Amino acid sequence: MAEYLPTEPYRGTRDFLPDEMSVRTQVFHRLYDVLERYGYQRYDGPQLEPVEIYEAKSSQEIVSQQLYTLTDQGGRRLALRPEMTPSVARMIAGNAGKLTFPVRWYSHPNCHRYERPQRGRVREHWQINVDLFGSAGTAVEVEFFELIHDMMGGLGATSDMWLLRVSDRVLLNALLTRIVEVPEDQVRVTANLLDRWEKVTDDALAADAAGIGLSDKQFARLGEIVRDGTAAVAELPQELREQSRLMQVLNSSAADLVTFDPLIVRGFDYYTSTVFEVFDTNPENRRSLFGGGRYDNLVGLYSAKEIPGFGFGMGDVTLIDFLNTHGLLPEPRTNVDVVVIPTRETLFEPARRAARLLRTAGMRTTTPLEVRKLGKELSRADKAGARAVVIVGDEDWATEQVTVRSLISGGQRKVSLKDVTSVARAILDDHHV
Amino acid sequence: MAEYLPTEPYRGTRDFLPDEMSVRTQVFHRLYDVLERYGYQRYDGPQLEPVEIYEAKSSQEIVSQQLYTLTDQGGRRLALRPEMTPSVARMIAGNAGKLTFPVRWYSHPNCHRYERPQRGRVREHWQINVDLFGSAGTAVEVEFFELIHDMMGGLGATSDMWLLRVSDRVLLNALLTRIVEVPEDQVRVTANLLDRWEKVTDDALAADAAGIGLSDKQFARLGEIVRDGTAAVAELPQELREQSRLMQVLNSSAADLVTFDPLIVRGFDYYTSTVFEVFDTNPENRRSLFGGGRYDNLVGLYSAKEIPGFGFGMGDVTLIDFLNTHGLLPEPRTNVDVVVIPTRETLFEPARRAARLLRTAGMRTTTPLEVRKLGKELSRADKAGARAVVIVGDEDWATEQVTVRSLISGGQRKVSLKDVTSVARAILDDHHV
Repeated sequence: MAEYLPTEPYRGTRDFLPDEMSVRTQVFHRLYDVLERYGYQRYDGPQLEPVEIYEAKSSQEIVSQQLYTLTDQGGRRLALRPEMTPSVARMIAGNAGKLTFPVRWYSHPNCHRYERPQRGRVREHWQINVDLFGSAGTAVEVEFFELIHDMMGGLGATSDMWLLRVSDRVLLNALLTRIVEVPEDQVRVTANLLDRWEKVTDDALAADAAGIGLSDKQFARLGEIVRDGTAAVAELPQELREQSRLMQVLNSSAADLVTFDPLIVRGFDYYTSTVFEVFDTNPENRRSLFGGGRYDNLVGLYSAKEIPGFGFGMGDVTLIDFLNTHGLLPEPRTNVDVVVIPTRETLFEPARRAARLLRTAGMRTTTPLEVRKLGKELSRADKAGARAVVIVGDEDWATEQVTVRSLISGGQRKVSLKDVTSVARAILDDHHV
Repeated sequence: MAEYLPTEPYRGTRDFLPDEMSVRTQVFHRLYDVLERYGYQRYDGPQLEPVEIYEAKSSQEIVSQQLYTLTDQGGRRLALRPEMTPSVARMIAGNAGKLTFPVRWYSHPNCHRYERPQRGRVREHWQINVDLFGSAGTAVEVEFFELIHDMMGGLGATSDMWLLRVSDRVLLNALLTRIVEVPEDQVRVTANLLDRWEKVTDDALAADAAGIGLSDKQFARLGEIVRDGTAAVAELPQELREQSRLMQVLNSSAADLVTFDPLIVRGFDYYTSTVFEVFDTNPENRRSLFGGGRYDNLVGLYSAKEIPGFGFGMGDVTLIDFLNTHGLLPEPRTNVDVVVIPTRETLFEPARRAARLLRTAGMRTTTPLEVRKLGKELSRADKAGARAVVIVGDEDWATEQVTVRSLISGGQRKVSLKDVTSVARAILDDHHV
């Protein structure tokens, strides 16, 4: 018996056949469209990056466990990018001299992380990345929150389907050190505890809290912050409150765009202030769809310039899943418009001439590659989604005519080649032939 | 002194900043558009593939020298795809049961090859891949040759700028064994000699010929085939000539689409019959732009099904270079349409309302993130390519009005918020304000 190579894609990666690809393309184009209306410009960068740019500032989990790395023949240690933010920071730093800030950029890279494949987790995902560089003002936060509302709206999601939960690492730091009385060097592990808050049982949480040295009283205070972050913030000195970008947003007309939630921490080390995540509100599926935040020091890894940044990455897996759950996925558009059918081998050439005219007029047109019975070709054309066929037969062609038939009404007409386009167009536009 | 990470992309890979990205996107969309009119459907697949699928049938050069490989934590040997054909053959084999043939597919993957970077050669390139599966008829060849003419035409290239050179491995095999009298097991190395024919000096060629055991007489005959392939083919038995797909094309109405050239060999092992390459006709730059051919046995690596295939990959580097040389690159479209300028912090909110209306009407609209002098904002708006600005000032806004100004004519008008969109649209459409 012959040995065959496996036809499955590598575990955790996906083949996108045309129907699925068409649905995805439509979804992503709606997002591109909203982004371009906000003045964001598309860019792209390499799949492979030096490992160092992740070691510097990505999350520990990614670098130690999830990075796909290789060494090239020149001995360079490279990684398949696990995320786009370090790449874009690199590009901004390298081109800062010729850019006019603020810079609004987006991209749509594929990213790799070595994860155990499961629902919502794959090893290669596609991510819409949106970043703004060059402004430290709270107007950036407001622009992003509006943009996210418009992106979700552009996908057909109504505001009851999802929630934009926001926190602020500066504010959280103040809450943890002043209200919970956690020492500075314990802030990070305590924040990690918040990150796990909704993902593990109460008992596990209490054990973790004890494990990092929190007293029962401290753990109880942490619980109070989780339950009512706003009340906790009110206990902070006014000066600290006023400095917080998040508090500035919450005291503006943009307050209704977001919900303050101290549980939003985000794993990446590079965030410096505002952090957010968008959640599905479906009680059966309260998952984070995507998130991001402010990373004011990342460009500084590459140059002496200090260029504040804000951005997010919107992964395809959870997004498509969310749209599917809410019935918001568009129909695939993979049909052809017209099939031109020659009834004999000798009529391939006039059939190609007709097809050329139809294509020039913008119609998706195919011709069969061999001659089959007309009935069989008509049913194939119907199956391919064609609404019109052009039949090139011996008798008609003797007078340079062809037959255009509607597969919707079944009506048909003999026309000369020059009229094929207008008659086919009329059928596609749902007029009678 | 601080140590900074390098801002250059990894050697042989490229960052695409928005202007360049916009040019590329426009070029590729023209190609997608032609492909869709021919009924080709877009698909996509993983970046990482099992190494085995290249070892089986790609060129020796790619597998032994150019493949980027890694081993994942589960011990699987993977490669960054160096080309798309093995992936698409895998997908076709795996989904053959649910597909209706012929299948017309295209994709636009990035591919990696470890090469010495030089003009026209990079380590990561983007490639438009076009394949048709499920028909062995010469109509496939004709469809591809027409498609290529329309793709080049869609990019603005006239037929004098490029040449479609075609050969046929079956025919070449007959020429080499019968006319040059090369033994079967020497056909491949002799074909490789043809592949180098235009790339090395005559002396080097003669030395190579001697090296593979060709007599002077055989080498002279090889030269005759190169000089006039058609005359050489005429010496073959009629039956062999008639079986050749290429000869069938050359005896049809599609003959004027191509030029027969025995020098076209193609490095990939999987081609079985027709092979072609498109060349720039510019005498200073007679380079191969892209190529492909028929590979009837590739799907057979994955299943017992025999599914003939035909396809090509069009790399971005030589293509963009060709378009640039011939002055065919489009202008970047990265400008914004309208900038909404609040003159005070307190006017950010009405400015955002105006911006929202403009975006909803499809205009690319930005708002500054901090308040600067109006003159400065106007010159920034001009630099960003905006043709209209909306100025939200205290006095106007007291009566819920804003000022819309044309940056083309300098004319301006006070309007209420509800009229902002139509007045801005009129400016963008080049009417007076």
